[in-house]
Formats: sequence, C-alpha cells, structure tokens
Amino acid sequence: MNAPARFFETAAPIAYGGPNAPSPLGFRWYDKDRVVLGKRLEDHLRFAVCYWHSFCWPGGDPFGGETFLRPWHHGDDALALAKAKADVAFELFRLLDVPFFTFHDVDAAPEGRSLKESVANLNAIADVFEKKIETARVRLLWGTANLFSNRRYMAGAATNPDPDVFAYAAGQVRAALEVTHRLGGRNYVLWGGREGYETLLNTDMKRELDQLGRFVSMVVEHKHKIGFDGPILIEPKPKEPTKHQYDFDVATCYGFLERYGLTKDVKLNLEQNHAILAGHSFQHEIALAQALGVFGSLDINRGDELLGWDTDQFAMNAPELALAFHEILKGGGFTTGGLNFDAKIRRQSIDPDDLIHAHVGSMDACARAFLAAAGMIEADALTGPVAERYAGWDGPEGRAILAGERTLADLADRALETGLDPCPRSGRQEFLESVVNRFV
Amino acid sequence: MNAPARFFETAAPIAYGGPNAPSPLGFRWYDKDRVVLGKRLEDHLRFAVCYWHSFCWPGGDPFGGETFLRPWHHGDDALALAKAKADVAFELFRLLDVPFFTFHDVDAAPEGRSLKESVANLNAIADVFEKKIETARVRLLWGTANLFSNRRYMAGAATNPDPDVFAYAAGQVRAALEVTHRLGGRNYVLWGGREGYETLLNTDMKRELDQLGRFVSMVVEHKHKIGFDGPILIEPKPKEPTKHQYDFDVATCYGFLERYGLTKDVKLNLEQNHAILAGHSFQHEIALAQALGVFGSLDINRGDELLGWDTDQFAMNAPELALAFHEILKGGGFTTGGLNFDAKIRRQSIDPDDLIHAHVGSMDACARAFLAAAGMIEADALTGPVAERYAGWDGPEGRAILAGERTLADLADRALETGLDPCPRSGRQEFLESVVNRFV
Amino acid sequence: MNAPARFFETAAPIAYGGPNAPSPLGFRWYDKDRVVLGKRLEDHLRFAVCYWHSFCWPGGDPFGGETFLRPWHHGDDALALAKAKADVAFELFRLLDVPFFTFHDVDAAPEGRSLKESVANLNAIADVFEKKIETARVRLLWGTANLFSNRRYMAGAATNPDPDVFAYAAGQVRAALEVTHRLGGRNYVLWGGREGYETLLNTDMKRELDQLGRFVSMVVEHKHKIGFDGPILIEPKPKEPTKHQYDFDVATCYGFLERYGLTKDVKLNLEQNHAILAGHSFQHEIALAQALGVFGSLDINRGDELLGWDTDQFAMNAPELALAFHEILKGGGFTTGGLNFDAKIRRQSIDPDDLIHAHVGSMDACARAFLAAAGMIEADALTGPVAERYAGWDGPEGRAILAGERTLADLADRALETGLDPCPRSGRQEFLESVVNRFV
Amino acid sequence: MNAPARFFETAAPIAYGGPNAPSPLGFRWYDKDRVVLGKRLEDHLRFAVCYWHSFCWPGGDPFGGETFLRPWHHGDDALALAKAKADVAFELFRLLDVPFFTFHDVDAAPEGRSLKESVANLNAIADVFEKKIETARVRLLWGTANLFSNRRYMAGAATNPDPDVFAYAAGQVRAALEVTHRLGGRNYVLWGGREGYETLLNTDMKRELDQLGRFVSMVVEHKHKIGFDGPILIEPKPKEPTKHQYDFDVATCYGFLERYGLTKDVKLNLEQNHAILAGHSFQHEIALAQALGVFGSLDINRGDELLGWDTDQFAMNAPELALAFHEILKGGGFTTGGLNFDAKIRRQSIDPDDLIHAHVGSMDACARAFLAAAGMIEADALTGPVAERYAGWDGPEGRAILAGERTLADLADRALETGLDPCPRSGRQEFLESVVNRFV
Repeated sequence: MNAPARFFETAAPIAYGGPNAPSPLGFRWYDKDRVVLGKRLEDHLRFAVCYWHSFCWPGGDPFGGETFLRPWHHGDDALALAKAKADVAFELFRLLDVPFFTFHDVDAAPEGRSLKESVANLNAIADVFEKKIETARVRLLWGTANLFSNRRYMAGAATNPDPDVFAYAAGQVRAALEVTHRLGGRNYVLWGGREGYETLLNTDMKRELDQLGRFVSMVVEHKHKIGFDGPILIEPKPKEPTKHQYDFDVATCYGFLERYGLTKDVKLNLEQNHAILAGHSFQHEIALAQALGVFGSLDINRGDELLGWDTDQFAMNAPELALAFHEILKGGGFTTGGLNFDAKIRRQSIDPDDLIHAHVGSMDACARAFLAAAGMIEADALTGPVAERYAGWDGPEGRAILAGERTLADLADRALETGLDPCPRSGRQEFLESVVNRFV
Repeated sequence: MNAPARFFETAAPIAYGGPNAPSPLGFRWYDKDRVVLGKRLEDHLRFAVCYWHSFCWPGGDPFGGETFLRPWHHGDDALALAKAKADVAFELFRLLDVPFFTFHDVDAAPEGRSLKESVANLNAIADVFEKKIETARVRLLWGTANLFSNRRYMAGAATNPDPDVFAYAAGQVRAALEVTHRLGGRNYVLWGGREGYETLLNTDMKRELDQLGRFVSMVVEHKHKIGFDGPILIEPKPKEPTKHQYDFDVATCYGFLERYGLTKDVKLNLEQNHAILAGHSFQHEIALAQALGVFGSLDINRGDELLGWDTDQFAMNAPELALAFHEILKGGGFTTGGLNFDAKIRRQSIDPDDLIHAHVGSMDACARAFLAAAGMIEADALTGPVAERYAGWDGPEGRAILAGERTLADLADRALETGLDPCPRSGRQEFLESVVNRFV
Repeated sequence: MNAPARFFETAAPIAYGGPNAPSPLGFRWYDKDRVVLGKRLEDHLRFAVCYWHSFCWPGGDPFGGETFLRPWHHGDDALALAKAKADVAFELFRLLDVPFFTFHDVDAAPEGRSLKESVANLNAIADVFEKKIETARVRLLWGTANLFSNRRYMAGAATNPDPDVFAYAAGQVRAALEVTHRLGGRNYVLWGGREGYETLLNTDMKRELDQLGRFVSMVVEHKHKIGFDGPILIEPKPKEPTKHQYDFDVATCYGFLERYGLTKDVKLNLEQNHAILAGHSFQHEIALAQALGVFGSLDINRGDELLGWDTDQFAMNAPELALAFHEILKGGGFTTGGLNFDAKIRRQSIDPDDLIHAHVGSMDACARAFLAAAGMIEADALTGPVAERYAGWDGPEGRAILAGERTLADLADRALETGLDPCPRSGRQEFLESVVNRFV
Repeated sequence: MNAPARFFETAAPIAYGGPNAPSPLGFRWYDKDRVVLGKRLEDHLRFAVCYWHSFCWPGGDPFGGETFLRPWHHGDDALALAKAKADVAFELFRLLDVPFFTFHDVDAAPEGRSLKESVANLNAIADVFEKKIETARVRLLWGTANLFSNRRYMAGAATNPDPDVFAYAAGQVRAALEVTHRLGGRNYVLWGGREGYETLLNTDMKRELDQLGRFVSMVVEHKHKIGFDGPILIEPKPKEPTKHQYDFDVATCYGFLERYGLTKDVKLNLEQNHAILAGHSFQHEIALAQALGVFGSLDINRGDELLGWDTDQFAMNAPELALAFHEILKGGGFTTGGLNFDAKIRRQSIDPDDLIHAHVGSMDACARAFLAAAGMIEADALTGPVAERYAGWDGPEGRAILAGERTLADLADRALETGLDPCPRSGRQEFLESVVNRFV
C-alpha cells in the first residue's frame, strides 16, 4: 500500500479558525485550549477516534459488499497489513489532533489460527502502538475484545450454551485487558455483542444471566490482580445483532450489576444510537446513569430515529448534543471516560478525506453544544428552575418523608385531617425549551 | 337506569360447548373443570374482569368523545349511579362465570369533593361489593388506587415535585389497600400512571426515584401492619401517558426494587401491551420476571405492534399466548396472580353484548393456548431440547466456573494450552418453531 | 369569565429585540420586516395560530381529565362562551402579531342539537370573526370542519358504511367551506380524522376509497360553484385515531388524487408529527410533495420520535427546521399556504402565558431556521453540489434516455460493447452535513 | 464438494402424513392434492423456494461473518461451484416437492470481470437450469437481476446520479429478463434494492423518480418486444438498505405506476416483512393491492415487529397467515403469482437439514392457514357481515351518490331539511375476531 502520509489528501493538522473560518476544514467551534468552567475544552471533551469503523469496516452492508477499497484490506501478509493500517490510523489521529483512540483486539491485529496465535499477533501490534504512542499526543481511552464476529461466538460468548466458548472468551479478554493495561488505557470495555438470544424457544435466560454475571466478575477480579485501575465499562444496547441483548439499556445494566454485586467496579459506556434503539433519548440514559451512580463514558454518534438499526452516524445536531452535555456537566463531567466516535462514514463516502470531514464536523458540533451546555450551567438556566420546582422536598416535612420518618398512615391522616388540596403548578416546558434555544 | 338483568341481551351464563359448539356464544375451549397438569383449568387461568375498561370508559379517544352511552354515566346521584354500575358489573361476572374481578378506587366509587368524602364513598361501595360477593362466585383478584387521572396528579403522585401531593396519594392508597384487604383481595397493585416525566428539562430524576422508593416502602410497611398477606404488585409500562415512566419494563422494575430493598414484598404485574411498547415480547417479560424471582400476575390483553400507544385489545392469537403460558407453567404457574382482562372493546363496539363476545372470545383463545402450553410441558417438547443444549454447564467444569472456582487466568490458560477450538451447534430455531405449531 | 385583556399576564405585543434581547419574551430572530430573498420574513413564514389546541383543548389525555380550567369551558350559555373564547383568541393573535389563524367549525361555534342549529351557530360566530378581522391584522389561513369527534362519525365520515353519515358530513362541510369563503380564507382543509379503519375484518376498503374520492370531488365542485379560489388541502396522517388512515402520507395521497382526478384542485397540508408517524422525515414529505406537484401548506409542530402518538409539540429544533425550509425555498416558497401552529402546550403548562412562551419560542426557532435556509439557498451551499452530482443527466445521452429515445436494448448493447465500467463517486454526506451546520 | 444427494441428511421427499403424523418431518396440513374451492392446494399456494437466502447467503450479519460453511462457497472455479450449488438447490426442490423456484442473476451465476462475462456466465447456468427443469417438477416462478450488491450500484441503479450506471443496469436486466423468458418464468421481478436515498442533502428526488419511471417503462417495452407475457413485478419496501426506498409500500408504488402510466403491465410482489417495516399489516398491503388492481405475487416470510430490520424469518403463525390468504381468496387467488419463500434460516441454524425443517414448517403453517381462510370464504363468515354493514350503499341513494348524481349541496340540503340524525351501529370487531378463531 501507499505510504500513510499519502492516504489522505489533507496533510496538516486541522486548526481552529473561528466561526467564520474560510477553509472548509478548519474547526469553527473546537478551540481545544479555550478554558471553560475551569478546564480546557480538550480536557472536557476527551475525544477518541475508534479503530473499527474508520479503519476496519470495508463499507459493506447486508445488501452489498465492500465500497472503500482500503489498500490495507487487500494483501496476504496479515501483520504487514495491520501495521500499514496502524500507520494510517495514527496519521488520522495526528490530523484531527485528538487526545485518544480506542480499539478491539481484532481491529488492530489479525486473528490467528489459534488463540495462541491471535494473542501473539495482538502483542506484536501492541508493540507497534507502544512505539507510536511514545512520539504522538494520542493516548488510549479504552481497549476491548471482539467476542461476537467469529463463528464460535454465534450463540454468545459468556452466555454461550457451551462452557468451552466461555473459556475461549476468557482467553481473549485476558489478553486484551492486559494489552490495554500495558498501553496505559484509561478504561476497559466489555460490549456483549451477542450476549442475548435469538429466540426464547432454545434459551435458558436465567442460566445465561448467571454466566454473564460470573464472567464480568472474573474480569473485575483479574483487573484488580494485575493492578489495572481504570473501570470496566459495559455498554447498553437493546438489540442487534441479537433479537434481545441482555445489556438492554442503563436501567437493565444497573439491575444486572446490582444482582451480581458489581456496581463498584463496573460503569457504563453509553451510546446515542443504542439509547434510541431502546426507546430512550441519549439525555435520558446519561441522566439515569448519573442518578444511579454508574456513569462512565460515551460512544458519541447518532442514530436515525426513523430506522430500526444501528446507523452509527456522526453526531451533528448541536441542540440535542447540548442537552446530553448538560447532563454530564451536572454530574461533574468525565473522569476516566470521554467521547469516543463510535461513528462511521456512510458507505458512499468513499474518499479518504470523507473520514476527516466527518470527524471535524462532529467535533465542531460537539464543541458548540458543549459551550452551550456550559453556558446553561453557568447561568443556572435549567438547574435554577428545577431546584425551585422541588423546593418543597427540601423543607422539613419533605425531608422527614424521605428519611423514613413518616408512615403511610401518618401522611394519610394528615391529608384527611387537614383537608389537603394541593394546587398544581405549571411545568413550563415550552418556556424551558425556549431558554435552551437561547444558549445553542 | 334499567335493571341490570336487562342491560345485556344474553341472560344465561356462557357454557362450555366444545370446539364445534353451534351457538355463537358457547365456550369452545374453556372447559373450566377440565383437569390439566393436576389442576382445573379455572384454577390455572384465574380469569378476572376489570372494572375500568368495561364499566367506566365511555368510549372516548383523543379525537372524539363518548360512544357507549352507558346509562350509569348519566345522572346526578353519583352513589346511585355507582351502585347501578356495580349491578351490571356483577351481572357480567355471572354471565362469564369468572372467578375474579379487579378495580381502582375511582372506578367503583365516585370521587368526592375532599379526600375524606372520597374515602367515605369508597367504603360505601365496598359495603355493596361485600354483600354481592357473599352470594356470587366471583372474588377480588386485586384492588388499586387511581393516582393519575385527577388534575392534582398531573406531575405524578409519589414523584410529584410537591410533597403534599405525595401525602394525598398516601391517603388514597391507604384507603384502597384497606378496602382490598377487607374484600379478601389476593394482591394489591400500584401502577405508576404518571410516575415519570414529560421532559428532563424540568425534572430531577434522582430525587423522584428516591421519592418513589420511599412511597412503595411505606405501602409495604402498611400492608404488614394491617396483616394483608398478598403481595404488592407494581406494573411495568414504558411510556404513555408520560414520555418516560419509571416502571419502564421488568428489568427496570427489578433494578428499582433491588435499589430500595423491596424484592421480597413486591412482585410484578405484567401486561402484553406494555411489554411491546417497551420493545419486548410478552413471553420475554414473563421469562425475565421468572428468572429474576419477581413474577406476580398478568394483565392479559394485546397491543398492536404497528401502533405506538396502548390499544388494550382483547388477546386472540393462540400461538402467541401459548408461548406466554409456557413460560408461566415452567415457573410453576400462578400463586396469588391471575389473568386480568385489562382489555377494552373498541369504541365502535357499542352493543352491550360486545362486552360478552370480547371476553368469551379471549377466554377461549387463552384456554386453547393454555392447553397447547400444557401439552408442550407434558411432552418436554421445548424444555427437553433446551436442557440438552446447555448440558455442558451441568458438567463438572461448567459447575465449577459458575461456582466461582475458576479465575479468568485459569480459563485463559486452559484455552491457550489445550488449543481450545469449540465447535458451534445448530440453534434449531425453525425446528422448534415447527414443534410449537404441532401443539397449538 | 374575565375580560380577555386580563386572561394573559402579558399585555403588549411581543417585539423583536435581537439575539441578545434581555426580556424573556422578546423575539430574538423573528424580525418580521426583515427582507430576505426579496420578501419580508412575515410574508415568507405566514404564521398562523390554530384554535383547537390553544383554545379548545382542556388539557386532558387518555389517562386524565382537564387541567387548564379555561373560564370559557365552564358555563351554560354556549354561544356566550364561544364569544368569550374568541375574545381571548384574538387577544393572543394580537400579542403574537401573527398574520393568520385557523379553525374547525366546532372549535369556533358550539354544536347544536341538529345540523341546522350547528350551522346557525357557526354563522353567528362567523359574524363575530368578521367584525374582529375588520380591526385586526390577522387573516384566515384556512377553515375546516370537524368530521371525527361526534359519535356519528365513529366509523368515518365520507368512508362511513352508512350513506346518511356521508350526507350529514356534506352538510357540515358546505357550511364550513362557505364560512371560510366569506371570511376570506386562503385555503380550505379536509383532514380525514376517521377516514380509515380499525380492523379489516369489518371493512370494505375499495368501497371506502371510492366514497372518499367522490366526497373530495364534490367539495371541489362546490368550491368552483361558489367561486372560492383557494385550494382544497388534504392532510396526510398515517394512524391515530384509526389504526390505518387512508391519507397515510404524501405518496399515498398523491396516488389517491391521481386515481380520482383531483391533482389540479387539491394540494397537501403537511405536518411534521404526521410525517414521522408515517416513518418519514418532515423534509422528505415536503420534498416529495414538491416533486409531485402537490405541495400546499404546513402544520408546523414536532413529534417525539420515541413515542408512537401525535404529541403535537411546538417545534424548537432549528437545524431540523432549516432543512424543511430549505426544501420549501427550493420549490419557491408558499403561495396560499403558511405555517400553521398545529401544536399544543403540554397539559402541565397550565399558566395562560405558557401559550405565549410556546408560540414565541417556536416562531423564533422557525425564523432562525428560515434565515439559515435562505443563507444556504443564496450560497448554493447544497443545490450546487447536487447539480454537479447529477450533471451527467444533463448531457446529451442522459437527456436522450429520459426523453425515451433509448430502448433497454440500446443501453444494454452500449454497455456490452463499450465494456462500460462506471466509477462510483463519494456521496459526501458528512461534508454536506457540516456545510449545513455552518448556516444554522 | 460432496455430491448433492449427500448434502442433506433427509433423502426422500417430504410426504403428507396428517395432523398427527409421527415423523418430525411429515407435512401435517399440506396435502398438495386436496381440492379446496375447486383447485388443488398446490395450485392455490404455488410455493417457490428462493435461491439467495437458501443457497447464497453464508450466514453473516453486520456483526459477524460466515457460519454455514457451505462447500460451494469455497473454491476457485466459480462456474463449477455454481453448478454444485445448483445440484443442491434442485435436490432441495425435490425433497420439498415444491412447484416453483426463484433467483437473481448473481445468485445463480458468478459475476464476471465485465458485463459481457457476467452475461455469459448467466447463460451458462441457464443451460444447466434448463436441463434440470426438463426432468424435475419444479418450474420458475420468477427471475430477477441484482442491481444493489455491486459497488457500482452503491448510489442506486436506475436512480443513480450517473447515467452510465443506468445503462449498465439495463444490460443486466435485459439478460436476466431474457433468461427468465427462456426458462419459462411466470413473472419478472424488479426490486429496487438501492433505488432510494441515504440523505436528501445530496439527492434530487424528482430527477430520480423520473429516471426510475423511464427504466421500468423500458423493461415493459422490452418484455413486449421479446414476447414475454408474464407481468413485471415491482416490490414495495420502505427502507433498508437505503434510508428511504422509492418503492415504500403498496400505496406509494401505485402512485408511481399511475404517474408513469404503468399500471397495466406492472403489478406488485408483496412481502410481509416489508409491509410491517412500512407500518402496515401484510393483510393491509394485500387488500390494498387488490383494491387498486395491482396485486401480483407474494414473498412469504415474517418480520419481527419489535425489530427494525428485515429479519426474513419463516412464516409460522397460522392465524395471521389466514387473514392474508383470506384477502387473496376474496380477490380470486393467484394468477401468475405464488408464495415465494423470501425467508432465511437463522445464522445459528447451521445444519443442512435446518433448511428442510424451516420450509416444511412454514409450508404447513401456510396450508393450515389457507384451509382456514377457505373455510371462512365458504361460510361467508367475514364477507357476509361486511356486505350487510355496507348495505346502505347498495340502495338507490347510495348508488346515486357514488355515481356522481348528487352534489354537495344536494346532500347538505337533504341533511338540513330532513333533520338527518344517523344512528351508529356496532363495528363488532371482537365478535368477528372470535369468528376467525373458529376457523383457524
């Protein structure tokens, strides 16, 4: 293949040029060093570029094959192709000037004919990554293992009816977790790609949930053993590829973590497209994860609400993003997490620089939305009215009720005896929507 | 209004006439005394007729008003009308020969100008019910309080921003729970009709969840105090009337009950239409509730998968129902629960006897489906292949993994050292679907 | 009831104050006299306030009753209440300074005990409107008849199995059309509220379509007879209240109009919420109506893509609206049509001024979006790349193909003989999305 | 690869054994020679097995690769592999004893490096098919060309922005149509796999519709030229792979055919899964196609209403199928059309005989459903009540209205003068649903 520097037409890193920048490729909002709410924008947003969509996916869909014709997808020497791919990947990281990247084991390194060979390949590529990281700004946000593409996982990994598949998956995850640790990854992700079922007719759901609980517990135990101090992240997704995935949404994952005693070590990696497939807004999933204390990181993308599959498009709608970021800021912002572009260019976007346009456009939309969210936080534009709305619960009786100092009969008696007749107040939804529009 | 005996054209209770019964109104499958799997069909199915759809709803929808013109909806003396309604209701229970009924406080008794008056009305009607029950076969499956229709609840009951609304709701629930207890109700239901939000812009979700947790806990404490030994049932529903309801689905409710320490006293009342609105099959919700130990009772109806609201139609598709009943039978069948017809005739079904046709048709579809499910259980038609599929987990290594006797490294080492290469086996979905078709 | 001037807290018309206006109630973008693309903003946008949601709906939903407690909903003298309602309505028109309003017959005037009485009431209120219009700036965008709320229409109006219902509907429509004409209405709308079916089991679809075709034809004939020169508008909606509505979407309505020879006189009134219920974006429906030559007017609102019913919220998302307006501008803008706020405040928005906040917020979002769309048009930001993409079809061979001057064999032979191997070009979706973001 | 006789475990054709047949693989309902409504079941149902799902799909999905490991997918000599595939295909046709099959050009024959080579390959395989058909019972229901998988079609075939792609598609379709004609195909299908758009930002919809109209017209002209007397069938599908497909649903296709004058020569091939993706029931799409005179053939399968993509499962629910067949029988049954199994086994169904179980199970479900539908037709179980419901329209006034002999004013005057007050009648939906359950 060509030398990576020549894969993209763009040669110099994308720079901030302000809202009216003349170049079609300058950042108009993402001024990484601008300080907002006490931190640089880059440190708030913690953008990561993902390996799989941008460098591994050939552009196929269920009705057609490859469209991208990436040079590193065609050749016989798998490791050499993997290295060529890494060159292009790090070139994109450089051009976008992103602080983070993410990958699955099989994105980065070719699968071998045996687990042993696969692990060896992964370590060989980890060596390559290690060297590249030394001289680049980019760091590893998280690594993960692909436990869903290979035929052996067709009926799940941890939830497979065959315990040998569970063991094989353990082998893959150990290697990926250890490589993530070696590369300084901030988190480790477990996405249950096929942890679910196609039909209940052949499924023992209780058994499978117990298997999954044990698997995640093992990973947590191993993380402590090797001294990896980032969180394990699981990722809610309701359906696709399976009819039902056990990590359906935030609420489901929370119940699972509670059941298996994992809420301390495991947090959630949320995705907009997964949220809407589950019938929730992205904002809801973030708010709920914050409320339940399991917020971790985000896969930033957008789905098409009118389509029923994971389109993983680049997020571009600033007003919607602003609400998501507002929830994150209310919760204090990211700690180990960040904004991972689990987003793919359309299969018709076959020019190499379409990858750049997509990331730049979405980084800018995120930056603009973040600034709006920060503005709302600073002005207490939404938090103020909300606090006022619930003020009654901060009074002595409200606090006593929540503290368990009132029984049903206490309250019922009070309501009866005082002839209680509470007067409803306006929810002011349209006013608050207009307020948001002042900031975006 | 007319005497109840003359409201319906049908005068005699519906009888079992066999699959080829000539009458349009005989049961063709529901032979209540037939013994299957050691119990009478009536004792397996535990049918209940609900008050609200059949006797309270006037036939309106968001685009049009009353169509049914029930005589008990027109008049000035609210208590007299409520008694006339009770006469018709018990006449329907008699004609259908159902063992159970269900009601909300405001279905049965008129709301008063104060909580005190409402409670008095409820007790007055409870007296009427008590007498009717003495001479009828019908019993109370469950009672509940309507905490969503009155304007005061527009922003929720337990989750209201105003603690006085919470207190008012406590007053209503205490009365409804005590009346349910007095009438020998087998369960008490809490459906969070507006426990959710319209917009996150004005909502403090964490606060509201804590309020709801406290409310349900109070009800549990009161149930113990008064010696009511049936379970409290909460009812998953994802949306409608609010944009998001906190009792979204089984998995969400389970997480909520775990969070607030309520899994022992509170179980779930599941509904087909709510299941599909949440993106799940009814069979899934039942299987999951069984797996998580929170199965309680069923609201039997059907939604339209192509519509996005709660249509609450009468369930008529025997093959689908058979899968639901198969899950229930696998879990041992109902204890205090039953099949409550939370189903309403279409607003164009304006003849009184449409109510009878609807119930009889659905009871028959349920009976036919139940017999099919029982046949599958007796033949181990599905349970056999499933047990075989997971047999590996019953071996020593499978049991050791689940018992926590293997670490990630143990399994990874075994996989690497033995060159583990698990061989997938067919999921046989189409074969199993054909097997089901032999039984229905 | 109170005098209308005192219903709203706000007393003076809302004024334009620029993007940083300090008042919470000034327009920030809607500068009605600003000239863009050769016309004043007011003349481009042609805002209309609707009667039904803002003045007739009491705030109920399927799970609860009235919340708004409008004074004109409580009293015995129906005509006096209707006049009081009109006072408030025209006061809102004045405060918002909108150029248009819209109404159904039964919104404005009370239904009588007979058709004759209803028509008399309508004419009485039309007299009131006529006088008010004389001294106000507001004009009538369109009128319509409600053929779905009354019990008689439960099985449809034109598509009713009973031809007498069809005749009754004819009576109502003649009166509403003539009143619309008298009041100088620019269009007349026919929304088939229950022209559809609940179940195919009792429906003869072919018959019903023919009935509907005849009904619309009759209205067109009558319009010509009385000299009404605005278009008749039908309104696509796929479902709700019925399971299937015959006016499903733009494509369906187009086929219907073609079948009954009505494309010349009948155009479409499109709504965002109806579009998404049918699985389409608003932009799509507008673009398709333009392509097929049947674009008429818009009901401007927004649905919630995650809910399955018509939420009719106020449109607030400027980037999405910009794409809708871009399609309209490509087609030359409105002629007789306009932007009718078929939007309702949430039932918790119980303060009178919530009505004002909602309209002002949405008018502003529309204005901002319109300015962005106009900017894109002026810069050929999207139209330029599209023209370039299809340039091949403007060449001689492309034109010949479309003109029918090539047969299948001609093209096949050319492809075979020249070894045709067309080279795909990037669709550049992400780039174009970023371009849009520069304008909004 | 192995000889085809040994690919399947099953060796003898599947036979009818009655409802209680002991063998797991006998037909229980599909007694092909049974005469119902004057025709043999085989001649009513006209089953076809499709090539693509059963012999071409390797078991992949967007998250994982091949699972089936078919021998004919691995090897270097493409034509030899295609012949081996044909051997297995015709063996399955024999085992299932189906009267028809269907295929795309690229299913049957390998694509060459040029159009010329592809056409040559197709003709070579057509020779093979021709010989096999001579000695087999199976016939060709329809052929078609795949205009969506190859990268050149990524932006559509007829609707491509590049007229050369249109020409290439013409070359492929001519060859496929002529081969279909040579093999005695009863119909020719055009499915617009990518005739639609991904984003309106880069799309000129009007242009694309005109291109598509011209393309279909060319195919019709060519069909007449070569003397092919079967209909051209287009196939409604709303989305997937593209965001919006121009053949959205029956109503959309009808409008398209009207617009381009094609209703005489072009009919529709309907599919259950496509129907529900468009928000319609299968029964609706069939009824509408019948009402509009464009019914052609069926792709029989089932989607999952809770998933948003084309799952193409084997149809198994007899009560639902019965309603579909009832519509077909009301319209007189199939002429050139039939029931094509556009259905695929799940990717976990990796045993060769899973293909047999799937087809047999679904053929049986169809047969059972068909018998129920025929029973309803014979008993006028649904058609009787429907005729009665609309009887008013068969009276003199009803006929006069539909014949255009009444104006809006005529009817309005009659309504006013007679004080018309039509009395609604029950729609009896639940009764009719119970009636259906007696037959299935």
